[in-house]
This record gives sequence, C-alpha cells and structure tokens, in this order.
Amino acid sequence: MSVGLLIISHNDVGRAMLNATVAMLGVNPLRVALMSVTTEDEPDELRQQARELVREVDRGEGVLVLTDLYGSTPSNIANCEYAEHQVNVVAGLNMPMLLRILNYPKLGLEELTEKAVSGGTDGVMRCPGKAP
Amino acid sequence: MSVGLLIISHNDVGRAMLNATVAMLGVNPLRVALMSVTTEDEPDELRQQARELVREVDRGEGVLVLTDLYGSTPSNIANCEYAEHQVNVVAGLNMPMLLRILNYPKLGLEELTEKAVSGGTDGVMRCPGKAP
Repeated sequence: MSVGLLIISHNDVGRAMLNATVAMLGVNPLRVALMSVTTEDEPDELRQQARELVREVDRGEGVLVLTDLYGSTPSNIANCEYAEHQVNVVAGLNMPMLLRILNYPKLGLEELTEKAVSGGTDGVMRCPGKAP
Repeated sequence: MSVGLLIISHNDVGRAMLNATVAMLGVNPLRVALMSVTTEDEPDELRQQARELVREVDRGEGVLVLTDLYGSTPSNIANCEYAEHQVNVVAGLNMPMLLRILNYPKLGLEELTEKAVSGGTDGVMRCPGKAP
C-alpha cells in the first residue's frame, strides 16, 4: 500500500515534470493522477474532477496533492474539500520535490508530505561556482 | 536594460512553466530563451547551444540561467563556462520562482538571482488548513 498522488497544475506543467522525472527514474512507484487547469475551465467542474481523481488514487492511505503556485486557480482547486479522504496539499511543485516523493513511495501521508516540502525547498539553490 | 533569462530544462518543463506564468501576468518583461534537453541530445552540442542563447539574451547586464534539477544533465549544461558573459545559475525551477523573477524585471543580476532563490523557496509550502 502507498499514498496516492494527484498533481494539479497550470496547463502542461505537471505532466511535463512528471514525464521527465519518471523517465529519469525509469519507474513510477506511485499511483499518480494529473489535472491540467486552463483559464477556460469552470471551477466547480474542476473541483468535481479533483474529488474524482482523489477517489481514484486513494487506496486508504490518503492522497498527496501537489500544485504549482499557491494562490492561483490550480492551488485553489487543490485546496477544496475531499469529504472522507485524507488529503494533504503542497504548493511550489518542482522536479526535486517530485523526485524526492518518488524516491520514498512507502512513506505514509504525513512523512511523504514532509519529504515533498523538504525536497522542493532543498532543490532550490544557487549553483556553486557561480558566486560573485 | 535588464538581465536576460535562459531556462534549461528536461523536455517541455521550462516551456510549460514559462507559458503558464506569462499567460497569468499578461506580459513577459524579460528577454527569455528556452532550451529543452532530451536524452538523445549530445552534451557538447547542448553546451554550444547554451552559449549561443546566452549571447542572444545578454545585453550587457548578464544572464540568469534557470534549470530544473541540480545534478541532472540540464543543470550540468547550465553550469558550463560562458566566457565573457556574466552568468548566474539557479536550480529548482518552479512557478513561484519564475513569477518572482518576472515581477522584478529591472533588478540587476545579483539581486534577481537572490529573488529567484527566495521566490522559489518561499513558494514551496504545505497549504494551510491541511495540517493534522
């Protein structure tokens, strides 16, 4: 058993990042659903879609929802109510975050949520050798 | 005058994120070049391409190079030598980073580099209301 993953992003941001990360790892150890949000989409339908996808990927261990930008529409959708499902939401999606998550597929929801935040944060860095 | 921007990412990650961010802002205030790196690409050619793109976007104020994952091929390309050009490299590309950068188009290279790191880091968060 493992946590489910739902990525809610602007357009193809989530898909591009997931494809690149899974190609690099050579395997996708988690159940992942993707949701692309465009400006044409209707928020109520998006929330409904998010709830359906959470139901699809939840096997009783909960769902980690990742989104790209806190305060934007995908993030507002990500933060909707999911009724009986246990859901944590992390914003600021980047490849280090996704890689860290996919490297710990056996963790529970709380631990995986912490890994998402630490992986995403640790991965933002000024590259060495370029200091003034 | 302003700093140039070069985004070097796996496949379409950079393009997807730039398109979404610019669509949200309604404007792109910086000169931006994109480089998509696939597993088929030859590193020497990629480095050559990166140098050409840095030359294209540099108007004398330097270039900020963003990449998605430190230690991966796009990041290794991003950290190549750029001869006479002043270049800083930041890894961990996410939408909050890109949005922060595009919100400060008049900053110099050092200040913009700091904004990239702080914007990217600040944007990684567990969303409120979802704490246990």
